[in-house]
Amino acid sequence: MFAGFFALNGNGEMTGTAWVKESGFLEGPVLLTNTHSVGVARDAAIAWRVRRAPADALGYYWSLPVVAETWDGDLNDINGFHVKERHVFEAIEGARAGAPVAEGDVGAGTGTSAFGWKAGIGTASRRLAADDGAYTVGALVQANCGRLDQLTIAGVPVGRELAGERKGKREGGSIVVVIATDAPLLPHQLERLARRGALGLARTGATSGDGSGDLFIAFSTANPGVWGAEAAATLRALPNARLDPVLDATVQATEEAIINALVAAETLTGMGGRTVEALPHDRLRAVLKRYGRLVE
Amino acid sequence: MFAGFFALNGNGEMTGTAWVKESGFLEGPVLLTNTHSVGVARDAAIAWRVRRAPADALGYYWSLPVVAETWDGDLNDINGFHVKERHVFEAIEGARAGAPVAEGDVGAGTGTSAFGWKAGIGTASRRLAADDGAYTVGALVQANCGRLDQLTIAGVPVGRELAGERKGKREGGSIVVVIATDAPLLPHQLERLARRGALGLARTGATSGDGSGDLFIAFSTANPGVWGAEAAATLRALPNARLDPVLDATVQATEEAIINALVAAETLTGMGGRTVEALPHDRLRAVLKRYGRLVE
Amino acid sequence: MFAGFFALNGNGEMTGTAWVKESGFLEGPVLLTNTHSVGVARDAAIAWRVRRAPADALGYYWSLPVVAETWDGDLNDINGFHVKERHVFEAIEGARAGAPVAEGDVGAGTGTSAFGWKAGIGTASRRLAADDGAYTVGALVQANCGRLDQLTIAGVPVGRELAGERKGKREGGSIVVVIATDAPLLPHQLERLARRGALGLARTGATSGDGSGDLFIAFSTANPGVWGAEAAATLRALPNARLDPVLDATVQATEEAIINALVAAETLTGMGGRTVEALPHDRLRAVLKRYGRLVE
Amino acid sequence: MFAGFFALNGNGEMTGTAWVKESGFLEGPVLLTNTHSVGVARDAAIAWRVRRAPADALGYYWSLPVVAETWDGDLNDINGFHVKERHVFEAIEGARAGAPVAEGDVGAGTGTSAFGWKAGIGTASRRLAADDGAYTVGALVQANCGRLDQLTIAGVPVGRELAGERKGKREGGSIVVVIATDAPLLPHQLERLARRGALGLARTGATSGDGSGDLFIAFSTANPGVWGAEAAATLRALPNARLDPVLDATVQATEEAIINALVAAETLTGMGGRTVEALPHDRLRAVLKRYGRLVE
Repeated sequence: MFAGFFALNGNGEMTGTAWVKESGFLEGPVLLTNTHSVGVARDAAIAWRVRRAPADALGYYWSLPVVAETWDGDLNDINGFHVKERHVFEAIEGARAGAPVAEGDVGAGTGTSAFGWKAGIGTASRRLAADDGAYTVGALVQANCGRLDQLTIAGVPVGRELAGERKGKREGGSIVVVIATDAPLLPHQLERLARRGALGLARTGATSGDGSGDLFIAFSTANPGVWGAEAAATLRALPNARLDPVLDATVQATEEAIINALVAAETLTGMGGRTVEALPHDRLRAVLKRYGRLVE
Repeated sequence: MFAGFFALNGNGEMTGTAWVKESGFLEGPVLLTNTHSVGVARDAAIAWRVRRAPADALGYYWSLPVVAETWDGDLNDINGFHVKERHVFEAIEGARAGAPVAEGDVGAGTGTSAFGWKAGIGTASRRLAADDGAYTVGALVQANCGRLDQLTIAGVPVGRELAGERKGKREGGSIVVVIATDAPLLPHQLERLARRGALGLARTGATSGDGSGDLFIAFSTANPGVWGAEAAATLRALPNARLDPVLDATVQATEEAIINALVAAETLTGMGGRTVEALPHDRLRAVLKRYGRLVE
Repeated sequence: MFAGFFALNGNGEMTGTAWVKESGFLEGPVLLTNTHSVGVARDAAIAWRVRRAPADALGYYWSLPVVAETWDGDLNDINGFHVKERHVFEAIEGARAGAPVAEGDVGAGTGTSAFGWKAGIGTASRRLAADDGAYTVGALVQANCGRLDQLTIAGVPVGRELAGERKGKREGGSIVVVIATDAPLLPHQLERLARRGALGLARTGATSGDGSGDLFIAFSTANPGVWGAEAAATLRALPNARLDPVLDATVQATEEAIINALVAAETLTGMGGRTVEALPHDRLRAVLKRYGRLVE
Repeated sequence: MFAGFFALNGNGEMTGTAWVKESGFLEGPVLLTNTHSVGVARDAAIAWRVRRAPADALGYYWSLPVVAETWDGDLNDINGFHVKERHVFEAIEGARAGAPVAEGDVGAGTGTSAFGWKAGIGTASRRLAADDGAYTVGALVQANCGRLDQLTIAGVPVGRELAGERKGKREGGSIVVVIATDAPLLPHQLERLARRGALGLARTGATSGDGSGDLFIAFSTANPGVWGAEAAATLRALPNARLDPVLDATVQATEEAIINALVAAETLTGMGGRTVEALPHDRLRAVLKRYGRLVE
C-alpha cells in the first residue's frame, strides 16, 4: 500500500520508515508496542513471515517491519522485557479486517497516559461527501503525550479546568498516529496527510515537547497490488486540487482519536501500585457545558 | 544568525532556503512581498548590497536573499508588477531595530485576507520565566490563510459564529511565519521551532489546504558573528532538555500573531472595487463572551 | 509533469522547489541563469504567462516558476544585472521540442567554469534496453563546479595530469542538474533519480564543497495532463523493482553531461579581460590514452 | 556526541535515527548486524544499560539505540535468528577506544558481499593538514553493495576486467557507513558529512539500486558532555568556510574504506556450502598496473 511518513518531533522510534519513505510503500502491518520492546516486535514480524508464510516472491518485502512505540515505564514494567515473540504472532494472526477497533487500555495503549490522565488507543474517522469522492479517512493513535494544563477539547481549556490540586509534570510522552484512507493517494500525498496529523494533535493543546516522539504514518488501501507489479502498472490518483476535504478529515480524525483515547481509557493501577486516573466524564461534560460546547 | 526552515505545505515561495538549511545561517533580511514580486525583491536585495555596501568579505553572503510571498491578487493588482527595486531599498534602509512593528494592512500584508476577513501583518511574543532563561520568542506573520468557517480564536469557533450569510470559498491562501528568538539555539533546534509554528497555526483552525504555502523560518540573534568566523568558533547553545518553554512560547506567539493580524487589519477596498471587511471587533467580543472566553 | 528535487549542497538557488516537492509536479519551464538574475527570470516567467497566455484554469499553476542559477561573476558582469525580461520571453518562446540542445558557452553556461576550465551547458542521455522498457533518461547540466585537481574523466585523474603550473583555487562553484525521462515515474521515484545525479557528479571528482549549490531536479514526461485532472486520474507507474536500469542511466548521463559541458566549451575572455581556457582536447586524449582509457 | 544522518537509498534499517536527526546527538554505540537481528540488538542495547549501568540521569538517553543492518542471507542462516542478547553485551563490553579496527570477515561483515566478491567491514581515515586544523576523519563501512561489473578502484574498471566468466546478479545489497571526526562540527554540518559519504560510495562504481539500504551516519567526538548540559552550554564549531578539507576527507575515507573491506575479506563458505570468493589481490594489482594506477 502506498504510504507516507512524518516526524513532528523525533524522540521516538518507528522502524522501517526509511524504506517507507524511499519506496512509497507500507508492505506489512504497523505494530505498536512500548519503547523497550520495539526490537522483539520487529524481529518477530520477520520470524512470523519466515515460519508461517511460504517463501515466495512477496516474502522479501516483509523484511523491514514497521514498529512504533511510546514509553509507558511509569505503569508498565518496561525493563522486564515482557513482550515475547508469541505476543506478536498472536497480534498479527488476531487482526481482523472490519472488526471494531478496541480503544483505551488495550495493547500498546495499556500503560500510556496523556495530558496527565490515563489514555491509550483511540480511533476516529471521517467520511467525505459524495461530491468529494465519499472516501473515508481514519486515524488510530497511541496517545502518551501532553501536559496536564495543556489539554484542550473542542477548544475548551479542559486541562486547566480539571487540574485542581494535581500537579503537572514535564512532558515526556509521545504519540504515534496511524492514518488510513481509501482515497487513491500517491506516496507524496500521503506524506501530506501525515503532516496534517500534527495539526490534529495541536488542536488538543499539545506543543510536542523535546521529549516527544510524535510520529505519523499514513497509508492508502487504494491501488492494491501495485507494489508487486512486474511492469509499468496502472493506478489511480486523486488530483491535488481535490485534496482539501481529505486534509480536513485527517486533522479532524486525528484530533478526535486523541480525545477518544482519553475518554475510552479507565483508571489503571500498574507497576509499584502507581495509579493513573481516567478523565472524569462527568466533570468533563460540566466543563464543556460551561464553555458553551455541550448542549444537553 | 543561526536559522532553521520548515514547510508545512509548500504551495509558496521562500527563496534562499536551500542555503539556510545547508549552512544553518540566515545571512540577511527576510523580505516579504506578493507572489508576483518575489523576483524583483530578491534581485533588489542583491543590488542594494552591491551598490550600498562595500565589496568586502561579508558581501558574498548576501547573494542568496530570503524573500517570501503570499498571493493577494484579489485586492492587489498583482499582475501590474508594481513593486520596484526602490521599494526594496526603502524597506531595507527603513528597518529599525527596536522600533514597534506595524501590524495589519501594511507592506506585504496590505492585500492579504485570512479566514474570509481582511488580515495582514501580525506579531506577538512571549518572554520566558527567569528560571527558563528569560529568553524572548517573537513571531511575525503575513496571514493570508484559512477558510471562513475555520477561524478559531481562543478555542472558540468564531468563524462559524460570525459567518452569517457570507459564503466561504475554497482555501487558496498561505501564511509566512518568521520566528525570532534570543535563546542561543543551534540550526537544528531552530528548525524545531519552525515546526512548532505549524502547531500555532493549527490552533487558529487552519488545516493547510493544498493551495497553501505555509512556510516557517526561525532564527536566533544569539551567537552574533559566528558565521563569519575564520577558525573554530566558540558559541553557546541551549540544551535540548531546556527547550520546552521555548517550544511552548513559539506555538503561543504564532497563534497570537495570526489573531493580531486579523484584529489589527481594517476593511480595505482594493483593485476593481473589491472590498474585504475587517473582523468586527464588537461581534468577536460577543462571541468570545458567549463561549466563556472573555470576562468584562 | 511529475517531478522530484534533491539538494546535495544548498549553496544555490532554485526557486519553486517547495511546490515541486509538495505537489509532485513541475508545472512550467526550468529556467537557468546567473545568481544575480534569478529574480528577474522568475518574475518574467510569470509576466510571460500573464501577457501571452489566456487567463485560464492552467494560468494559476505558473505562479511559482522554477529558476536555478550558478555564479559566474569572474567572467560575467553579474553586478550589472544585464538579464532583462525580454531575454526570458525570448528563451521561453524560442524553446523547441526535439531541437538539438546547444552545449558549451551558451545561455546561463556562457560564463561558467568547472574544474578550473571553461565549462557551460552539457547534455547526455541513455536509452534503456527493450527489456527494461526502452525508456530514455537525459541529463542537462549547468556546470560551474569542482577544483582543478579534482577533475576525473572515465576514472582518470585528468585534473592532476593537466594542471601543470596552473594553480587551483578554492571550490566556489555550483552545478544545476536537470534530469528528464519518459519512464512513467511517480514524484518520490523522481526524487530518487535526482539523488542519483549526485552520484554522477561524484564520478567527475567533485566533492561538493561548502560553497557549492549542487541542486538536482528530475521530471517525467509520462502521464501528461495528470496534474490538471478534475477527478481521480488514471496513470501509469514503473514498479520500484524495475527502477535499477533507470537509476544506472541517470548516474551515467549526469557524469557524461558534465564532461560534455567541458569538452564543448571554448576558451572565453570575459569581464575585465579575464580568460578561462577550454580543456585542451589533444592533451586530454593523450592522458586518457596513457591510462588505458582511449584506444585509437 | 553531535551527529547527522543521511539516507541515499532507504531500503535498509537504522533504528534511532529519528532522534539523531531531531536532537542532533548520538547518545550511545552504533551497533551493526544482519537484517533479521536488528531487533534483538536494539533491545539488548537497552537491556545492557538497564542491567549494567546505574539508573541515573544518563540512563534515559540510551532508550533509542542506533542499530543498522545489511542482508547477508546468502551466506548466513539469517532466518535462524542466531544473534542473541549476550552477543550484544559482549560487543559493547569488548569495545576498546584506540584499538585497531578489525576488517574483512568480522562481526556484521562476516556474511557480506560487495560487487560480487566477499566483503565485510572496512575502515580508512584522513588526517587534515595543520593549516586545516589537523582534524581526523574516519569512515567505517559494512559493505554489502554493488554489482560485479560496477566495481571501480582508483578509477579503474576493475569489475569488468575481473568478471571473466562470472555472472553478475541484480544488486540487492546495501551499505552502512559510519563517519567519525574530532572536528568540532554541529549536527547540520555532520549531516553534510553524511551526504559526502554517498560521493565516496559513487567513486567505487555503485549506483545505489532500488534494493540498496545505503545509510550514512556521521558524528563528532568534539564538544563532549554538551548533550547532558543543564544550562546554556559553551561549545566550539568549525565555520562552514573551513569545511572543505573535512568534506574532501570524508569522500576519500569512505571510498577507501569500501575498497579496504573488499581487500581485507577472505573467501568464505557459508550456509548450504555456498562460497563467495575474495577479490584476487594479484589479479587486482595486474589490472591496476595495466591502467597506470600502480607502480611497482
